[in-house]
Formats: sequence, C-alpha cells, structure tokens
Amino acid sequence: MRIEGKEYRTIWYEDDVVKIINQTKLPHQFIIKNLKTVKDTINAIKIMEVRGAPLIGGTAAYGIVLAIKENSDPEFIKKSAIELIQSRPTAINLKWAVDRMMKKLSGINSDKILNLALDEAKEICDEDEKFCEQIGINGLKIIEDIYNRKNDKVNILTHCNAGWLATINWGTATSPIYHAHKKGIPVHVWVDETRPRNQGANLTSYELNEEKIPNTIIADNTGGILMQRGEVDMCIVGTDRTLSNGDVCNKIGTYLKALAAHDNNIPFYVALPSSTIDWDTKDAKDIPIEERNSEELSHVDGIDENNELKKVLIYPNKSKALNLAFDVTPAKYVTGLITEKGISEATYGSLHKLFK
Amino acid sequence: MRIEGKEYRTIWYEDDVVKIINQTKLPHQFIIKNLKTVKDTINAIKIMEVRGAPLIGGTAAYGIVLAIKENSDPEFIKKSAIELIQSRPTAINLKWAVDRMMKKLSGINSDKILNLALDEAKEICDEDEKFCEQIGINGLKIIEDIYNRKNDKVNILTHCNAGWLATINWGTATSPIYHAHKKGIPVHVWVDETRPRNQGANLTSYELNEEKIPNTIIADNTGGILMQRGEVDMCIVGTDRTLSNGDVCNKIGTYLKALAAHDNNIPFYVALPSSTIDWDTKDAKDIPIEERNSEELSHVDGIDENNELKKVLIYPNKSKALNLAFDVTPAKYVTGLITEKGISEATYGSLHKLFK
Repeated sequence: MRIEGKEYRTIWYEDDVVKIINQTKLPHQFIIKNLKTVKDTINAIKIMEVRGAPLIGGTAAYGIVLAIKENSDPEFIKKSAIELIQSRPTAINLKWAVDRMMKKLSGINSDKILNLALDEAKEICDEDEKFCEQIGINGLKIIEDIYNRKNDKVNILTHCNAGWLATINWGTATSPIYHAHKKGIPVHVWVDETRPRNQGANLTSYELNEEKIPNTIIADNTGGILMQRGEVDMCIVGTDRTLSNGDVCNKIGTYLKALAAHDNNIPFYVALPSSTIDWDTKDAKDIPIEERNSEELSHVDGIDENNELKKVLIYPNKSKALNLAFDVTPAKYVTGLITEKGISEATYGSLHKLFK
Repeated sequence: MRIEGKEYRTIWYEDDVVKIINQTKLPHQFIIKNLKTVKDTINAIKIMEVRGAPLIGGTAAYGIVLAIKENSDPEFIKKSAIELIQSRPTAINLKWAVDRMMKKLSGINSDKILNLALDEAKEICDEDEKFCEQIGINGLKIIEDIYNRKNDKVNILTHCNAGWLATINWGTATSPIYHAHKKGIPVHVWVDETRPRNQGANLTSYELNEEKIPNTIIADNTGGILMQRGEVDMCIVGTDRTLSNGDVCNKIGTYLKALAAHDNNIPFYVALPSSTIDWDTKDAKDIPIEERNSEELSHVDGIDENNELKKVLIYPNKSKALNLAFDVTPAKYVTGLITEKGISEATYGSLHKLFK
C-alpha cells in the first residue's frame, strides 16, 4: 500500500540486507531500517519495530536467512530458530513461519541453503500478501451487503492495527475495507486508539489516512456508546492466534468490543490468514499472554511544541502498572472468521471443513 | 483525606475566596487555586480544574456565593445561575446544587443574602461529605462479605476517579475502599487509566497512593482479561447522573466494564449520593452526552527527562478524533446502587422506596 503516494511492502530483501519500516517511529517519523543479522531481527521483533502476527512471521523467516548468511552451521541455525520463536510469545505465526523454514531447510547442508532459504522467506511473504488480498475479497461481500441494505456510508470499528503494516501488504482486518474503498463503497472507520502502544492511532489511522480512507480515532472506552447509538455497522479485528475452537486471541481490549457488539447485535468479524490458526492448543487458558514492560503504559512518545519527539511520564511517580498485551474473545462472541479460503464460523467443525 | 500526610477537602472558603485543588495539574503538581468571581468558578468547572459530579455541585454552590459578592442584583445572580448550570451538561449535581441555592435565596434581598448563601454552600458540601462517608459505611459491608468468604485480599476494579477528589471528601466509589482499609481488610485496587484525560491514573491512583492503599494502573482495555482470570472480586464506579430507572451515566468506558463484569459473574456496583439521581429524565437517550475537544485525545501532558511538564501530540497530524465524555450502562448490568441511605437495586421501585 502507499505512504505519501509511494507503494511499499512492510519487509523486503535488497542489497543483501532485510529492510523494514521501523514501526516504533510511526506516525511521527518514516524510517526504513536495515536488518543485517539474526540478532537484529530478534531485537526488531522484541521491541516491536515490526509487529502484527503475519509480519512477525515474515520477519522471522528472513531472520533464518540472515542466520544462514552469518553462519551456515546447522547448530547455529537451530539455535537462532529457537531464539526467534522465543522473541515474542503470543502470535502463533512466528512459530509457524520458523517451523516452515526449518522443515524446508532440513538436511540441506550445501551452498544451496542460502538461496533456498531466501526463496522460502520470499514465498512466505508472497503467500501472506496473496492470502490477505483474498481475505479482502471475501470480507468485501459483508461490507457490500451492509451497504446495499443501508444505502449509506458503512461504519466499521477496528481495534489495534491489523492493517497492511501488520502484514506484508493489504492487512487482515483492513483488507476488506481497502477492497470496499477501491470499489467505491463509502466506508468510515472508527479506529480504537489501542492503549498502551496506541497502534490504532499510530498505525491504523496513519495507514488509512495515506490511502485516503475516512477514519476517526476514538479512545478505547468509546466503542460501546457508538454501538448503542447505531453508529457502528460492523467490527473487524485481526488476531495473533485463533484456536481451532474459534476462540480469538488478539490485542488487549478486543474482548470488551466483542461484548459490546454482542450486546447491540452488531456483527463482530475476525480476519486472519490460516497461518494464524493454532490447531494444537485446545484451551484458551493455555495461550501464553505476553506481559510487557509497564513503561509502555506510564510513558508516552509524542511531538512537542518544537516539533521534537519526546518521551514523557504520564503517571504519578509512585504508581505501578500492569501491561498485559492480549486477551481472548470466546468464540461465542465472534460472528465469523474471514480467511483466505472464505468465511468460517468460529467453530472447530467449520474451520476443519475449510482447512483440513 | 490526605496529600503528603496533610488533611484536605477539595474545596473550602477562606480569606474571602473559594479555594480548590487545581486537578488539571495533578499528579505532577499540587496547586491550590483561588476562585474570586463566578466567572472563575464557571471556568474552573469547564476546564475541569474541578470535576466529579458531587464536587461540581459543591463548586457551583460556591459560585453563587461569589456571584452575590460581586453583585447582589437578583438579575445578575439569576444569570450567573444559568451560566453555572450550562458550564457542563452531563453531571446532574450541578443543576441540583444551583437549584437548591436559588431556592434557599429566593425572595431574600437584604444584607443577609451573602451569609445565607455561604451557609447553604457550606451545608451542601458538609452534607456531601457526610453522605459520602455513609456510602462508605454501607459499601464496606459488601467488601467485608467478600473478604470473609475469600479470606484473602479483595481486588476491586474502578474506572475514572470517583474518589475524594471527585467529591468534597471520602469519594463515592472509593469511600467503601477507604473504610475497608481503615478496618484492616486487605484491598487492592485495579485502576483503569481512563482515557482520554487519564483521571484514573492521574487522580485515583494518586489519591490511593497518598492513603497507602495498594493499587495498580491498567489500560482501559485490560479489565476484561483480569475478570476472566478471576483477578477482580468486584467493581465499584461512580456516576454523573443515574436515572430513577437505574440506568447509570458515567465516564465513557464504564459500560464496557459492566458488560465484562456481567459476562464473568462479578458484582458491579455504582456508588452515589442521592443528589446524583435524576428523577425527571425517563429515557437514557435524553441524557446530554458531553462532547469535548478532541485535543484531549490527541495531546497528552507529562513530565519530560528534564522534569518539565510538556504537552505532546501523540496522533498522526492528519488524523481526526472524537471525544465523547460519558456513556450509559443499562440498569440490568448494575448489581446495586450504594447510596447514603443503603444499597438499592438499580430499579425505580427500589430507589423510590429508599428516597421518596
């Protein structure tokens, strides 16, 4: 998609390095960063220079490429793979992508391994782009139906950033929105700010602005009253891990919006590529919920009156804070899962039929 | 209650001026401000140097006193009363207190009017303090019951600031907590940050710290998962206006927490003095929901690395934002209303029995 009119993907390989958009600097600064080693890659994932389940997967795949470039000793590659998987706990695509790379490279010990890894990392990214496009085509039908019924602007609420910046391109939750916009359907997006890291404001609103899609940032507290007032026609969010029973793990606060949607009979959709489905974990209680540094809550980055980027403390200095990054929305509150293969119910039966 | 060990009320009359704690500067600066005119008072309410339904009521009462001091012409007092009532639209105590003052002063045209007004304003504040204390005694029983059942620390979630800083003293939602703490019951408070103005972090956590009550600030998104995990024993919030049918208007986001409490079978209480009951409005849709400046969302105040208070822009500069200040929690999600006269069901019948 576009930034200041120019087309980008979120990650690409060029001049022997992996290039990413440093998402911790958005929306205030647009900086392309080079990753040269697997350590660079692990760090970029940890400090969230790249984030979003599908993009973390793509980045980890390129991390294996960089590991091989540094040292093609199988032990080093294996150790790097483990460290990559451990760099963030909740998004399942990370493990999925590393496992896929390692399976592809298993037993290959020759000069070919680097090119093979490069091809596979590129394939993972290309496939994610294709899947996200397909999610858009499938989700478009839902927006189109609402538009045909309402014959007026479709108001869509989203939480966090499941936009193209969270994937390789198109996004998951945003892909149906981009497709609707391209088709001329008038859409307006309510963007949950998404504390503590404000990825809704910093990334989703930013990328929608760049694609000229009308959007309004709201505090995370605001979705409920907008739904009560009939100002939300549907919700679409992404997911970091969806269990095969349809339980959806996503950015903290998603569950509260799903409850409000349910209370107001508003459809609540989750958009995901199949790489985000966790077929192994049976109980949502077993999903590791990442706890991040509480400074992400107590300190905020912004632009001061001199146009300089500043970090400020916003809490009382005696206070402590807890920073849980994800929650789980029970399947019963999910209207449907928009995947690359079509729209599934949030049930094992429906997912199994589509993918197994 | 105490700040740095010293006892305060939130408003008092001294040396011919009304003194308030400027709450827009907390938690970073503790500043006592003098209000000398009714205009000062209206401005303090508008820009939220004082806030919280009961404290707004008390402040407006003193606003009438200051109006009389400036000009005892009945027309001026009447005009001032109207302007005071219009200074913020949602909290009902504002109108209640001004109406009470005007009724008391009606027909009085003599030298006595100033002293009469002063006495009545003080009486409104004293009564609020007494009612809040009584709310604490009544709410204490709920906390005590949980403690006796659990025999372990009681975890209470609250939203925004319905603490002593929102009232004259004790607070509404916090009063049962302060009473429990004084009685030696171990309590821990989950404090919703409460965007956009962060009154949970800035005021509730601040005042709990000063009273040495353990508390943890969380993003507004976090309450749901804590409830799912069993880490919340009860919720208590305040209210800006409660209808006689039990519908509760309170700081934006309250409704989402009530939904989560309901989904997890956690009691959800609302604490209020009877001055917050709106006996006239029949339908929650008729409550005026204040829309405030979107800069309260897009800009944040904090302390920079040089220990200076800075305002920073946190949103993309092309983005727009909507800042609704309140929402309404339907009565069916409210376990009970903790009032100065006892705990009422959130129904007309129960409220009527207690107060009419």
